[in-house]
Amino acid sequence: MSRLKNLFGIQWPIVQAGMIWCSGWELASAVSNAGGLGVIGAGSMYPEVLRDQILKCQAATDKPFAVNVPLIYPSIEEHMRTIMELGVPIVFTSAGSPSKWTSELQAKDIRVVHVISSVKFAHKAEMAGVDAIVAEGFEAGGHNGKEETTTICLVPAVADAVRIPVIAAGGIYDGRTALAAFALGAEGVQIGSRFVVTHESSAHRAFKERILEAGDGETLLRLKDLTPVRLLDNPFSREVAAAEESGAGVEELRTLLGRGRAKRGMFEGDLEHGELEIGQVSGQIKELQSAASIVEGLVDEYQGLTSGMEDSHFHW
Amino acid sequence: MSRLKNLFGIQWPIVQAGMIWCSGWELASAVSNAGGLGVIGAGSMYPEVLRDQILKCQAATDKPFAVNVPLIYPSIEEHMRTIMELGVPIVFTSAGSPSKWTSELQAKDIRVVHVISSVKFAHKAEMAGVDAIVAEGFEAGGHNGKEETTTICLVPAVADAVRIPVIAAGGIYDGRTALAAFALGAEGVQIGSRFVVTHESSAHRAFKERILEAGDGETLLRLKDLTPVRLLDNPFSREVAAAEESGAGVEELRTLLGRGRAKRGMFEGDLEHGELEIGQVSGQIKELQSAASIVEGLVDEYQGLTSGMEDSHFHW
Repeated sequence: MSRLKNLFGIQWPIVQAGMIWCSGWELASAVSNAGGLGVIGAGSMYPEVLRDQILKCQAATDKPFAVNVPLIYPSIEEHMRTIMELGVPIVFTSAGSPSKWTSELQAKDIRVVHVISSVKFAHKAEMAGVDAIVAEGFEAGGHNGKEETTTICLVPAVADAVRIPVIAAGGIYDGRTALAAFALGAEGVQIGSRFVVTHESSAHRAFKERILEAGDGETLLRLKDLTPVRLLDNPFSREVAAAEESGAGVEELRTLLGRGRAKRGMFEGDLEHGELEIGQVSGQIKELQSAASIVEGLVDEYQGLTSGMEDSHFHW
Repeated sequence: MSRLKNLFGIQWPIVQAGMIWCSGWELASAVSNAGGLGVIGAGSMYPEVLRDQILKCQAATDKPFAVNVPLIYPSIEEHMRTIMELGVPIVFTSAGSPSKWTSELQAKDIRVVHVISSVKFAHKAEMAGVDAIVAEGFEAGGHNGKEETTTICLVPAVADAVRIPVIAAGGIYDGRTALAAFALGAEGVQIGSRFVVTHESSAHRAFKERILEAGDGETLLRLKDLTPVRLLDNPFSREVAAAEESGAGVEELRTLLGRGRAKRGMFEGDLEHGELEIGQVSGQIKELQSAASIVEGLVDEYQGLTSGMEDSHFHW
């Protein structure tokens, strides 16, 4: 009995993270068709682009999929109207208070999942009535919490603190890490970085290839005083690091960041001057695959680990 | 068949971390008597103190125990002579190259375990011939790696990279987190912070009580440019943070740190001006216990999780 599979109507408790510039309808529909939950990342989309992406996703799959909406997004009203009008069944919200939109979405029979990175905000999300929580650890790619709490510390603390299902995120990419997340109390896993390196991801090919080359320790959390974000090492991230080490203030960092850096790096493939948002687990990603082969391989590995558990590696 | 239990001659694959100012003979012998591996933390001990601690530990238990020696320790030669002379069966080395001491210790039939925080140093330790590795994640208390790789990312990467047994450290404190570590490929777990909050730990009572009050996000990695260390929030750690944010250099930080800060905080209980080294998991530690009750509770919880795995929470 899996609460999450029932909540979302999916076969496997695997959520593909909604990621700016990487997760459009092609990736989302591929993950949903493979039995997981595909998520369109609306944070990098104009309202008309999101509408088009949802329509294409609906044409490509008859399975449930979701849209991830950062609540600080300027056109949030239009995004939410489109989602409700087109009957998207599940919305992931992040980067803001879930209290404003949750009940309105739920009134339209839309499930709401909120992404948090601390116990305090897990409590707030539960109080706001969301259906599930994504507990995202420090190792995750992209924007992240100031507390720097890692997956192994955050997930059990959140699972102890709330009654709604917890989906673990940050550092999960295979059967081993998915089983670790379930051991910690999660009822589902959200996977971002590994799905960036798929044929269906809209990330630029140069960015995918750079991730395949990444080694241990090549991502670090940057721009902590502005809005913490995990970046892959490149000339731009080193420029940010140098500015931070010399004590740059928020305004100076904002100017350095400028506009459109993430698009330039992840979507246009400018590996020098672009912002390359990716998780720490990128050091473990070795192959460009289809989304379906990732889901299938992960499920096989997970089931292999859990089936032989009593007379195996796990026996104490 | 557990390689680690055979290697150490212990009942449970639970290692108590060797920690300065917290893990003397009382804690180490209590953990070993409970079936785990107790470890004396020699990094805060003068040579004559270590000798006395080893003799007392030998009098208190007939089970194997270990000594942890930071390889940058100034009196390393004397420490190692004492360890070999008194027949300590296992040595944990950290903070330096394991190539110098490993073969000399092994020639005396002493097992050598080296602590690392990156795949690169895991390779080096295996090349140096150590018997096992502790892979310590970013969330661990005390001194830590510059790569900031977390337990869920580090352990699978290290387990893939080496053939010797891997002991996971960082964020582990109960049956759930121990099972997560085994899912990631570890064959043992090292637990630090939770053993600080025991009757047998030599930490000051005020420090233990402060840990019990700690919440989510109250530890952060500090002094990254000097030598990264995870500290509990207090006036001293805030002073360090302010200096770092204003771009303080290495010399300035070294002066601010001064001498004896860790002793002052952890051993003498000065919660204002002392250095309070503890893991991120301190937010989850709710009770001052005996070391034996921690070991027993953890084993019970672990076995409960692994025994019912096929028709439970874990079933996909």
